[in-house]
Amino acid sequence: MLSKTPLKNLHGTEEMPSPQTTICLRVRYSETDQMGTFYNSRALEWFECGRTELLRHLGVPYAQMESQGVFLPLVESHVNYLGRARYDDQLQVVTTAAMEGKASVKFQIRIRQADGGEVAAGYTLHAVTNQSGKPIRPPEWFLQALAGRGEQP
Amino acid sequence: MLSKTPLKNLHGTEEMPSPQTTICLRVRYSETDQMGTFYNSRALEWFECGRTELLRHLGVPYAQMESQGVFLPLVESHVNYLGRARYDDQLQVVTTAAMEGKASVKFQIRIRQADGGEVAAGYTLHAVTNQSGKPIRPPEWFLQALAGRGEQP
Amino acid sequence: MLSKTPLKNLHGTEEMPSPQTTICLRVRYSETDQMGTFYNSRALEWFECGRTELLRHLGVPYAQMESQGVFLPLVESHVNYLGRARYDDQLQVVTTAAMEGKASVKFQIRIRQADGGEVAAGYTLHAVTNQSGKPIRPPEWFLQALAGRGEQP
Amino acid sequence: MLSKTPLKNLHGTEEMPSPQTTICLRVRYSETDQMGTFYNSRALEWFECGRTELLRHLGVPYAQMESQGVFLPLVESHVNYLGRARYDDQLQVVTTAAMEGKASVKFQIRIRQADGGEVAAGYTLHAVTNQSGKPIRPPEWFLQALAGRGEQP
Repeated sequence: MLSKTPLKNLHGTEEMPSPQTTICLRVRYSETDQMGTFYNSRALEWFECGRTELLRHLGVPYAQMESQGVFLPLVESHVNYLGRARYDDQLQVVTTAAMEGKASVKFQIRIRQADGGEVAAGYTLHAVTNQSGKPIRPPEWFLQALAGRGEQP
Repeated sequence: MLSKTPLKNLHGTEEMPSPQTTICLRVRYSETDQMGTFYNSRALEWFECGRTELLRHLGVPYAQMESQGVFLPLVESHVNYLGRARYDDQLQVVTTAAMEGKASVKFQIRIRQADGGEVAAGYTLHAVTNQSGKPIRPPEWFLQALAGRGEQP
Repeated sequence: MLSKTPLKNLHGTEEMPSPQTTICLRVRYSETDQMGTFYNSRALEWFECGRTELLRHLGVPYAQMESQGVFLPLVESHVNYLGRARYDDQLQVVTTAAMEGKASVKFQIRIRQADGGEVAAGYTLHAVTNQSGKPIRPPEWFLQALAGRGEQP
Repeated sequence: MLSKTPLKNLHGTEEMPSPQTTICLRVRYSETDQMGTFYNSRALEWFECGRTELLRHLGVPYAQMESQGVFLPLVESHVNYLGRARYDDQLQVVTTAAMEGKASVKFQIRIRQADGGEVAAGYTLHAVTNQSGKPIRPPEWFLQALAGRGEQP
C-alpha cells in the first residue's frame, strides 16, 4: 500500500518522492443524498480517511501525534467533483503528502471507482500547531516521516 | 415556546408538569439519503437540537453545564420512525425532560411536519457525570431547573 | 466472517441459527465529538455498515435488493451506549438478522473494541416495502437468504 | 435579510449587484469533533444552508427547482478555515450568487461569529443539469432570479 521508492534524477542524486498510500472504502447509505450520489461534504470525510492511513503507514499515526501535542488543523480544503459514486460502490482513495513552506502540510487526494472512473480530487492544507492552536515548528520526527525517512515502529 | 404552568390536581396541590419546548428546523439536503427521505441517524441529531433548546429555556444551557463540569452522556436512545420528511420540509421538534430515578435524565421527543404529520418519536436517556465520565449526583440547580423552578439568568 | 452452521437440537431436528457477520471499522475523526468519544448518532451509521455486510454475505446485497424494488426502511431503532470509542479505535460490529412476524426484519448489532470492551448494542427493525414505501410480502429469495438457505451468486 | 437594490454607476445605468442573504445557525454538538471546534466538512453543510435560503429569497426554492427538473450538482468546492466555532456558538452565514460563464453558478459564502470573528469563507461552483446529470441551458426564470429581477411568488 505504501510506496516511497527514491527516484534518481538526471544528476544521479536521489529525489525523495512524496510518500503515497491507497485505501479502499465503500460508500455508506448514510453518505448518499436524494440525488442518488454521495453528498458533497463526504469527500472531505474520505479525504480524512486517506490522511489517517498515510500517516499510519509513515509511522506517525495521527492519534499518537495528538497525544504528543502535535495537531494538524485544516487551513484550506479544495475538492473537484469529477464523477458519481453510489451506495455500496467500492472506492480507492490515493493520498500523498508534502511540506508546504516551513510550517504547513499539504495532502493531495484522488478518489476513484474500482474501475478507474474519477470521483473526486483535491487537497487539504494544514497548519502544525499545539493543542491550543498555536503554530509550532514541525518536530524533526514528523519531517523525517513525511520525507519517507522515518523510523517506523 | 416554553410552558411550565403548574397544574392543580384534585387535591388542590400543585403538580409540576414536565417543562416543554418546541423548535422548528428545516431538513437539510445533507440529511437526506437516496431513498428521498431523511437518513435514520439524523433523527438523533434533531433530538439533540431539541435537548439543547429545552435546557437553554430552563436557564441551564448545556454548553454552560459542561463548562461547570456537568456532562450528560447518552446511555440509551430509541427512535420510532413514523413518517417521511423531505429536503426543505419544515419540522417541529417537541421536547420534554424529567429525572429518571436519582441519577438519570430522560428526554422525550416528538418530531412532526408543520401540517401535523408525525415524523419520528422517541427518547434519549442520559447519565449525569463529571468530565471523566464518572457518575455524579445531579447539582441542585439542575434539579430545580428540570422541575421548572430554576432561577433563569 | 459468516457462520450459518445448522445446530442439531435435542430431538435431532435442525434449527437454523440466525446468520451472523463480523466486520471491522475504525472510528473516523469526523465521527468524534467534543466529549472525545464518538457522537451518539454514529452508532446507527455503524449499524448500517453491519447490515450491509450481513446482507452481502447472505447473497442479497442491499443495493441489488433496491434495484429489484425491495426496500427495508427503518421502523424503529434502539441503542444502548456501553463504552467509549475514540478516534482511530478499531471496532468490531457483529450483526445478526431474523424475520420479526411476517413482514418485518430485525437486525441485532453489537459493537465492541478489539480488546472485547463493549461500545454499543441495539437493534433496528425494518419494514419490507416497494419503492413508494408500501409494505410488500418479503420475496421468497429474501426469506431463504435470511434463513441461511439462500443460493449465493 | 435580502438585499438586491440596484446601484447606479457613473454612466447612470443600473448595475445589478449580486443578491445576498444572511442566515443564523447554531453549531450542533454533532458538528463538533474532539479538537473542540467544528469538524471541517460541516462548513460545506453550512454552505448548503446558505444556498438554500438565498434561492428561497430569490423566489426559486431549490426543492421547487428540482421538482421542475433543474439540478445544481457541485463541480468544485473551496473552504478557507479562518477561526474556531464551538458547540452552541451562533454563526452568521452570508451568501451571494452569480452566473459563472454561461452554464455554471458560483456561490460565495462567508461564515462568521455573531461578534464578527471570521470562521470560514469559500465558494461552491455548480453545473446546471437535468435529473440524469446532463448539462442544460439555465432556464430564463433562473437567470432572472439570480440577476435579482425574478417574479417572486
